[in-house]
Amino acid sequence: MLINKIGEFALIKRIKKFIKGDASVIKGPGDDCAVVKYDRAHYLLLSCDMLVEDVDFTKKADAYLIGRKALAVSLSDIAACGGIPRYALVSLGLPKRSSLELVDGITRGIRAIARQYKVNIVGGDLSRAGKIIIDVSITGLVKKRHLLLRSGAKVGDVIFVSGALGGSISGKHLRFTPRLKESQYLVRNFKVSSMIDISDGLAQDLYHICTSSGVGAMLCQHLIPLNKAARGLEDALYSGEDFELLFTLPPPEAKRLLKKAGRFFYPIGEVVAKRCGVCLVDQDHGLRLLPSKGFRHF
Amino acid sequence: MLINKIGEFALIKRIKKFIKGDASVIKGPGDDCAVVKYDRAHYLLLSCDMLVEDVDFTKKADAYLIGRKALAVSLSDIAACGGIPRYALVSLGLPKRSSLELVDGITRGIRAIARQYKVNIVGGDLSRAGKIIIDVSITGLVKKRHLLLRSGAKVGDVIFVSGALGGSISGKHLRFTPRLKESQYLVRNFKVSSMIDISDGLAQDLYHICTSSGVGAMLCQHLIPLNKAARGLEDALYSGEDFELLFTLPPPEAKRLLKKAGRFFYPIGEVVAKRCGVCLVDQDHGLRLLPSKGFRHF
Repeated sequence: MLINKIGEFALIKRIKKFIKGDASVIKGPGDDCAVVKYDRAHYLLLSCDMLVEDVDFTKKADAYLIGRKALAVSLSDIAACGGIPRYALVSLGLPKRSSLELVDGITRGIRAIARQYKVNIVGGDLSRAGKIIIDVSITGLVKKRHLLLRSGAKVGDVIFVSGALGGSISGKHLRFTPRLKESQYLVRNFKVSSMIDISDGLAQDLYHICTSSGVGAMLCQHLIPLNKAARGLEDALYSGEDFELLFTLPPPEAKRLLKKAGRFFYPIGEVVAKRCGVCLVDQDHGLRLLPSKGFRHF
Repeated sequence: MLINKIGEFALIKRIKKFIKGDASVIKGPGDDCAVVKYDRAHYLLLSCDMLVEDVDFTKKADAYLIGRKALAVSLSDIAACGGIPRYALVSLGLPKRSSLELVDGITRGIRAIARQYKVNIVGGDLSRAGKIIIDVSITGLVKKRHLLLRSGAKVGDVIFVSGALGGSISGKHLRFTPRLKESQYLVRNFKVSSMIDISDGLAQDLYHICTSSGVGAMLCQHLIPLNKAARGLEDALYSGEDFELLFTLPPPEAKRLLKKAGRFFYPIGEVVAKRCGVCLVDQDHGLRLLPSKGFRHF
């Protein structure tokens, strides 16, 4: 049987079954980061993201932006858990006939964003490969009381996003800002109940929160902020790589957030009972169930 | 200019120039693991290794052994620094038409060796790719006084290896034992001055120790233990993937090691002045300079 018959998420589930951690593992596979014990006040976060030529970028793209994106994607995972990034490793697979300019460009891009967010690139690995592969693994620290997972959403919570969605594929995916600043602002000042970064598309990542939290969700179409590059709502719902934060807050906290920083965060709906599924109220006040679709590798 | 013109090591040097860490980084790129501050008694070790189909294994190989090797290579890096492995992340790139059996096999192989060495697989990433790619990143802990780098060898030290060398490519590279037990025995009982694992071949990895330590080395051909699969000395010197430990000890410690555990460790030469380079005394008592050659990706 081939893996594309069962699909990416069934495959992940299958692999996860094989894996069990010891008591030091707070959260194993299945969230934006793995969470393990560190010291009295902190957990250690770990995450990795593999970028592959012709899947996550094309060879034509600016090498600097390819490198930048490779680290930015991992930074976004740390942000989604409420943490601060610390150390990164970069594994680089390169075709034999790659140019020095390509390698220099990728390295410069990684360095620039590493400096910006004070991440130390502490090592890596270099290998020959048929296409360009960049796998970045990252560690971060999160204060115990700041840790955010996909699993804390409660019925009645307000659903927020940190920015406009859709059309990222037309360029933003190479230039996006990992929402570390926003994440720190949120965890330091508000009781956020769950968080994820939108990498597969709003619908699919909202499903991730709902499945992990055992809840449903109701989105209001007219509240969803669209990117200029988005061709319409469908892009915002189902096209991936926005790398905005998607999170939930209890109503009093939501009110406070809107008052204090309503310019930067968009309420887009509400957490509802699990049996309602994930729905959207469209502009004609009609209700429709959203399919759990978005970017999938298989 | 193409990267295969300047070669793997010049490329690594070039990339390293771009990278600087803050004061928490004890050792950045350029050793078997990166070393960063952790707590009063320990350092945190970080390492990653990318395995690529048709470079590190063929598709024909047993999927279980491919998975096993992917983690074993990283365990060997932790061993080379005197540490104990803790957490690993696995990024997996797979062709769209991969079989479930392949993925199950790889997963089982990773799980088996993870259990054996008490490593927690805490997360990963899954991506479509043209060929099978497995990138494992690992963290470990090392007691500060146990930390071993490539850079501590002193003139007069005795050079040891932890096992027979050569011919790994004929099968051992998929089944090798990462020398974690041996490494722990050494750091707990002896004043080891430098250590590396042999991944590129004895000659090249000895060059790594010599360059980092600012010394030369003299090997005795008749002392180098050969694997059954090795076709001769050349295989032991220049073929990669033995994953044995190569380390140095001051003479009194060396004597003690030989007395206590001489069955498990082989003295193969002596650290000499830098100006002597890396030499071999052959069986006719002739002296020859060893070239710094071995497995290279570019």
